[in-house]
Amino acid sequence: MSDTNFAAVEELLQNHRAKTEARVDMLLPENGRLSDSVVHAARHSLLDAGKRIRPLLLVEFYKLCGGEDECAYHFAAALEMIHTYSLIHDDLPCMDDDDMRRGKPSCHKQFGEATAVLAGDGLLTEAFGVAAKTVGLPVERILRAMGVLSSCAGISGMVGGQIIDLESENKQVQIETVTEMYRLKTGALIRAAATIGCILAGADEDLIEAASTYGEKMGLAFQVIDDILDFESTDGVLGKPVGSDEKNHKNTYVSLLGLEESRNIATQLTNEAITILERFSGDTNAIADLTKYLLSRNR
Amino acid sequence: MSDTNFAAVEELLQNHRAKTEARVDMLLPENGRLSDSVVHAARHSLLDAGKRIRPLLLVEFYKLCGGEDECAYHFAAALEMIHTYSLIHDDLPCMDDDDMRRGKPSCHKQFGEATAVLAGDGLLTEAFGVAAKTVGLPVERILRAMGVLSSCAGISGMVGGQIIDLESENKQVQIETVTEMYRLKTGALIRAAATIGCILAGADEDLIEAASTYGEKMGLAFQVIDDILDFESTDGVLGKPVGSDEKNHKNTYVSLLGLEESRNIATQLTNEAITILERFSGDTNAIADLTKYLLSRNR
Repeated sequence: MSDTNFAAVEELLQNHRAKTEARVDMLLPENGRLSDSVVHAARHSLLDAGKRIRPLLLVEFYKLCGGEDECAYHFAAALEMIHTYSLIHDDLPCMDDDDMRRGKPSCHKQFGEATAVLAGDGLLTEAFGVAAKTVGLPVERILRAMGVLSSCAGISGMVGGQIIDLESENKQVQIETVTEMYRLKTGALIRAAATIGCILAGADEDLIEAASTYGEKMGLAFQVIDDILDFESTDGVLGKPVGSDEKNHKNTYVSLLGLEESRNIATQLTNEAITILERFSGDTNAIADLTKYLLSRNR
Repeated sequence: MSDTNFAAVEELLQNHRAKTEARVDMLLPENGRLSDSVVHAARHSLLDAGKRIRPLLLVEFYKLCGGEDECAYHFAAALEMIHTYSLIHDDLPCMDDDDMRRGKPSCHKQFGEATAVLAGDGLLTEAFGVAAKTVGLPVERILRAMGVLSSCAGISGMVGGQIIDLESENKQVQIETVTEMYRLKTGALIRAAATIGCILAGADEDLIEAASTYGEKMGLAFQVIDDILDFESTDGVLGKPVGSDEKNHKNTYVSLLGLEESRNIATQLTNEAITILERFSGDTNAIADLTKYLLSRNR
């Protein structure tokens, strides 16, 4: 892929970031209520931060399957709200105990633990309300997509991955356990993004299935690259403390398989994810370029 | 009301408890996955405990508006899952720091803080999935009810009430602030129960509105009675440490208005709630008796 493609991906990311930003800003306003402080804390973690990969994927798969851009943005915002809640709770002292996130103090560092717990709870709860308020699409699709959102974020998905992560700390585990943890902790929400995009657009079942497999592979690649970055990056570039995996005695692809093997796996998964895109008849260049871009990211 | 009515209410509660219990037991199984421990912790807090007032109200309003019993039980279970998640997070050390709940060790006492945070997150997330999987009802109703569930549990509802509660500790606040806190913290989910029952049954808008007003008044009465019980009950009866409001320097109806005035207000709200039931044409005796029963409960 040429540098030109990278520039196009960065423009796409920037464009999507602005749209997601505007949408969540509108959906979660501070409006002079007694409960505004929890909104303020949620907005601290939600706005002006993050790559917005998940909402971008959701909207791009939606467009790939013939959907009209604007209708899917409520779900895109809901997905980012769920991702953000998971970061807030993950950073808590009783979890990973991280002070920095997305280049800013983590939510509990800035507002205290209790407010951070509630900001996370609020974002998770409101996300489903935002999704339920999607307009312009058949209600059957919205309901099915909400089911996917719940199962990918819940105990069979992200929350399940978090508990495996927690229980693997300070223990020697097999690569299979780490893979299952990544599949749930990071992969599930990326899989949700791709499949929900297809579901909302009314795609055929085989395409929804293809999107799910793409998300599975791309999500795993994404997390393996995160491991590599955590191992070798510097604080300033990553926006969060590096080496926190090592600090927390976490089992990662890098700690179990080494840097080179991890890089090879990430590259292979990326290539497999891109190959799956061939099953779609539309223009998959934007998603393919994004997938390659994420492999070579430095943050 | 005679003692006979009380016996009937207790039978109704027992009957509903068994049905809710069976439903949540089925919906949240431990099934040999790596993530089972979070399910185990969630089930500890969810099963064999609680009065199940909210699911009971949901199903009774549903039946009152002509609904068929079984279809509403998924939503009833979802509501109880959301209520339980809120108790788990509310008991955390950074929140109310309570060691006992529903006559058992609180979730974090039994399983540790991180698992308790995740058990709460899991219950909240799965609740929306359970609701989305409701069968036998028009999807428009299910989607609207999910919107109500989110707004009543979220920042304009329960989470909003929790943050007001948190910020009122160790401060002298007015009774209006306490009322708003109760309206959101406790009232919102009870209001959700009554209105969702009506929505799922396809009731007219004026009846949905009446159910909302009933829930508002009944929910406030319920929390004022909780204040009274916290002040005067014993640990053994209540199943949680008494005087925890005083320990946490909380503003309550009892601390601001005294016992007698609080009792008068609870009685008046109960009567007003029962009067509202006259707007329904069906048999409201079961709900009316339950409402009176809750006024005279001792736990």
